[in-house]
Amino acid sequence: MATVGFIGLGNMGAPMAANLVSAGHAVRGFDVVADNIETAAAKGVTKAPSAREAVSGADVVVTMLPAGQHVRSVYDDVVAAAASGTVFIDSSTIDVDSAKAVHAQASEAGMHALDAPVSGGVGGAEAASLTFMCGGTADAFAAGEPIIASMGKRIIHCGDGGAGQVAKACNNMALAIAMIGTAEAMTMGQELGLDPQTLFDVMSTSSGGSWALVNHCPVAGPVPQSAANNDFKPGFAADLMLKDLGLAQEAARAAGTATPLGAAALQMYRMLVAGGAGAKDYSAVIQMLSARD
Amino acid sequence: MATVGFIGLGNMGAPMAANLVSAGHAVRGFDVVADNIETAAAKGVTKAPSAREAVSGADVVVTMLPAGQHVRSVYDDVVAAAASGTVFIDSSTIDVDSAKAVHAQASEAGMHALDAPVSGGVGGAEAASLTFMCGGTADAFAAGEPIIASMGKRIIHCGDGGAGQVAKACNNMALAIAMIGTAEAMTMGQELGLDPQTLFDVMSTSSGGSWALVNHCPVAGPVPQSAANNDFKPGFAADLMLKDLGLAQEAARAAGTATPLGAAALQMYRMLVAGGAGAKDYSAVIQMLSARD
Amino acid sequence: MATVGFIGLGNMGAPMAANLVSAGHAVRGFDVVADNIETAAAKGVTKAPSAREAVSGADVVVTMLPAGQHVRSVYDDVVAAAASGTVFIDSSTIDVDSAKAVHAQASEAGMHALDAPVSGGVGGAEAASLTFMCGGTADAFAAGEPIIASMGKRIIHCGDGGAGQVAKACNNMALAIAMIGTAEAMTMGQELGLDPQTLFDVMSTSSGGSWALVNHCPVAGPVPQSAANNDFKPGFAADLMLKDLGLAQEAARAAGTATPLGAAALQMYRMLVAGGAGAKDYSAVIQMLSARD
Amino acid sequence: MATVGFIGLGNMGAPMAANLVSAGHAVRGFDVVADNIETAAAKGVTKAPSAREAVSGADVVVTMLPAGQHVRSVYDDVVAAAASGTVFIDSSTIDVDSAKAVHAQASEAGMHALDAPVSGGVGGAEAASLTFMCGGTADAFAAGEPIIASMGKRIIHCGDGGAGQVAKACNNMALAIAMIGTAEAMTMGQELGLDPQTLFDVMSTSSGGSWALVNHCPVAGPVPQSAANNDFKPGFAADLMLKDLGLAQEAARAAGTATPLGAAALQMYRMLVAGGAGAKDYSAVIQMLSARD
Repeated sequence: MATVGFIGLGNMGAPMAANLVSAGHAVRGFDVVADNIETAAAKGVTKAPSAREAVSGADVVVTMLPAGQHVRSVYDDVVAAAASGTVFIDSSTIDVDSAKAVHAQASEAGMHALDAPVSGGVGGAEAASLTFMCGGTADAFAAGEPIIASMGKRIIHCGDGGAGQVAKACNNMALAIAMIGTAEAMTMGQELGLDPQTLFDVMSTSSGGSWALVNHCPVAGPVPQSAANNDFKPGFAADLMLKDLGLAQEAARAAGTATPLGAAALQMYRMLVAGGAGAKDYSAVIQMLSARD
Repeated sequence: MATVGFIGLGNMGAPMAANLVSAGHAVRGFDVVADNIETAAAKGVTKAPSAREAVSGADVVVTMLPAGQHVRSVYDDVVAAAASGTVFIDSSTIDVDSAKAVHAQASEAGMHALDAPVSGGVGGAEAASLTFMCGGTADAFAAGEPIIASMGKRIIHCGDGGAGQVAKACNNMALAIAMIGTAEAMTMGQELGLDPQTLFDVMSTSSGGSWALVNHCPVAGPVPQSAANNDFKPGFAADLMLKDLGLAQEAARAAGTATPLGAAALQMYRMLVAGGAGAKDYSAVIQMLSARD
Repeated sequence: MATVGFIGLGNMGAPMAANLVSAGHAVRGFDVVADNIETAAAKGVTKAPSAREAVSGADVVVTMLPAGQHVRSVYDDVVAAAASGTVFIDSSTIDVDSAKAVHAQASEAGMHALDAPVSGGVGGAEAASLTFMCGGTADAFAAGEPIIASMGKRIIHCGDGGAGQVAKACNNMALAIAMIGTAEAMTMGQELGLDPQTLFDVMSTSSGGSWALVNHCPVAGPVPQSAANNDFKPGFAADLMLKDLGLAQEAARAAGTATPLGAAALQMYRMLVAGGAGAKDYSAVIQMLSARD
Repeated sequence: MATVGFIGLGNMGAPMAANLVSAGHAVRGFDVVADNIETAAAKGVTKAPSAREAVSGADVVVTMLPAGQHVRSVYDDVVAAAASGTVFIDSSTIDVDSAKAVHAQASEAGMHALDAPVSGGVGGAEAASLTFMCGGTADAFAAGEPIIASMGKRIIHCGDGGAGQVAKACNNMALAIAMIGTAEAMTMGQELGLDPQTLFDVMSTSSGGSWALVNHCPVAGPVPQSAANNDFKPGFAADLMLKDLGLAQEAARAAGTATPLGAAALQMYRMLVAGGAGAKDYSAVIQMLSARD
């Protein structure tokens, strides 16, 4: 069993750290919000007085933070406090440039570095069923995988440093586009008299099918667990989808490739959020497409 | 076995008629292009000198024509020549308004009417593996289904007259959107260093997956049979996708619902076609997204 | 002075007919809504019991109707009732196909035909300051212009039959796009701390300027008469802009040319109207772009 | 007359520095490309061996650099070398965040700081007819304006530090949108039979008019000096418009406001550039909209 320093104990980080504890690891946690540390401590995480002290003496460092600037700041603070050979796993969803920067910083200091953003949300974090998309060397992946295995079900090695963030940005951009396309089709079909269940049956078994349709159907009925059956309570909040689409647009700009639908999807979510629906599930985008009662 | 009048013996109609012949039906075919009649005759279809004579005395009438105006014109010509109770199956992909109009015309004349557009392309027509999306009464569907069964594998009753066209428009709009979204993600990921196979593996097993990705992956490699492996030889031509997206936009206008990505997808295909790629597979839209060598 | 049959006496038609009366013409008016006839009669229009009787014996026929189907229907009814050489002026804003069809129908019956859609709204109709965009032969334009001059200020001969509708569709599509672009720029600038008057001053005298900005500025202040200063009371209602953008998309489809921003603009207006703002001025599209208090 | 340190002597910077020389100022110039220094020296600029030495002892420092990172790097290098009270004018077109950062850096060091991006292109730089959009305190503006007056015709005080960059991003986003809208309207109208000159006459005097139409008409003919008459030789290169639209999207993200057409415009330019037309005038976007011969 390993000693793990865990920095960032919010809605995602706290249950992930708790799962490491459950697996038998010694976890020392820190968060800038004191209440978050207490929540994690109640699940068996040892309280650390600072990020640096959480890291000192650890075999593995996991970070779960809101944005690239926070990860950069924490790495600036703690890399020097870690022993050479420590495994640094950043599970934050951040911009590719920051991911590559901290990857380089940790590698140059002799660490094993992985960017390892997740999908699966708070539910997946609690159930230890997250998917991890990992970027880093084969050695770093080999070193990190057994630790990650206590927090998730699927662990994919996507390529070198930053590749995990790229993969997540690509995947979530495709998801947003498929969701909006699904919502457009379901709304139009329903307005023209099709029964939503029938249209779902057609599309889910034909060429118009997608993961978004089959799992997150934005019309109530066909997929009982989808947020549409529950007043669009998330699930995966529109705010977070907007954040991910922003990261995807940054990546597209760095790539110099065109993403006309990805850009349009971002604008839809920005309008949805501006309209006050940021805390709803991202499938609530369907409410922009037709008149509401 | 039935006597079938078949009008429209082009790339799709000819093999469909041939499959009816193979199933033991007596098929009398007509097309405004004489060569098309000869092609069908070589497969056992009896040549009719006119649409009206193809229909006279038939139990079933199948039409497979390019656009709503052609179907309207043929129905104006032939409905009066059919006996009451004849089953009219229009497998053309046309606008919902025309579908409803000919449906009403045939119904008022005492016929069983079905709109029954297909998906599956020329390959599906030849292999009798098409999917039929049907609109009409339960009686009409019951009457038509056994005939259709000789031409396809999946036969779905979508609702009343016009519902088949609505379902196809919805499905294909969602397909186009998912394809462009997939192409954007694959292009961006590849440019940022991800191996296409790896990104395919991630997305196809994660929330970014779709029928378009898994069956028509627009990057060569991951899906060996996809058009991307074969210089984008169709498959499903961009010209036809543009036509379907136009029908979807007409449907959206009638519905009064918003389809921001459907509209954007149409514009992408119009630009692709304007650029000279109309005869390529619709997955060739990926070529607009990045610099070509 | 001429005898004018005027069909369609709604918000636009009634004041236009009244201006013909004021100019000394004998105007016989008809509308399917009886109240509309009474309103026009109060302004000096002679009541006709049917469209056909309004047309019988007239030198000039003016139609001002909601959509192509209405114009087609009226022409089917009245062309045969008119004497050869009568001047047919259709000032409705309709699809190009219908405009060309009624143009051909009237021309073949020996009439002078003009499509002559207007811009300027109810205010322009009342003040006789409308702009007329005319399509038809030089002879038809010469015959119609003196009559039109009593209803408008600018009368432009755009080309053959249908050219007036094409010009209006092009112009209004460009207007909608410029309005949304202006709204995006003003919203973003204001949120980032720029004073709207300052940004207006920069853009209106720089390369970002447009008629939309200078006349219909969507932020209150810089242009005192713009609808933004008056709770977005139209002016030019979003509903009508949505109609015009639909006609533009039909025209684009007929042309086979791409209009990516025109299509996106239509979708914005469809969402705006779906959200309940159809009766507001079209500049209210700015309210979709940022959080409202 | 002032002593001016000028850093960045490329296509824009060299003629701007030359105009300062012509106005009687003593200009010491530096560029990382040695040839650029020689070009400027031929116009009377004194060669400085480094940025720091160009700045040392100067009353005014002008920077004209490609991107935010270069401006940040130069300010890090030279601010300490300047005397308190020196006027720092950054005429680069850069992101708002960088503009604000260097503004704060210079202000804290006791300097007068202005962000002052320009419009007008190389032609405007040579003719000293540029427009400057300035951000900074009233004192900084008062100090910088007399110097700027030797390089441009219109000098606008847009607000505090960064406001010049915001104003330019807003203006150029609106310009790109208006240009694409104009191109869509002209292409569609022409395809449907309108004479481009006639459509130009209608739109330029009606509600569809814009600075883009009247000055940079993307169809040859109506505006003789527009790039469309000259094989789309810039003028204002598509590459640069793409850069400006990228800055606008960064600004929109910071603002949290939606720019659906601004985002779509960026994607159009990215596709145009990916297709190999980056060095053409930005009005060449019209070539994406219809089939080319």
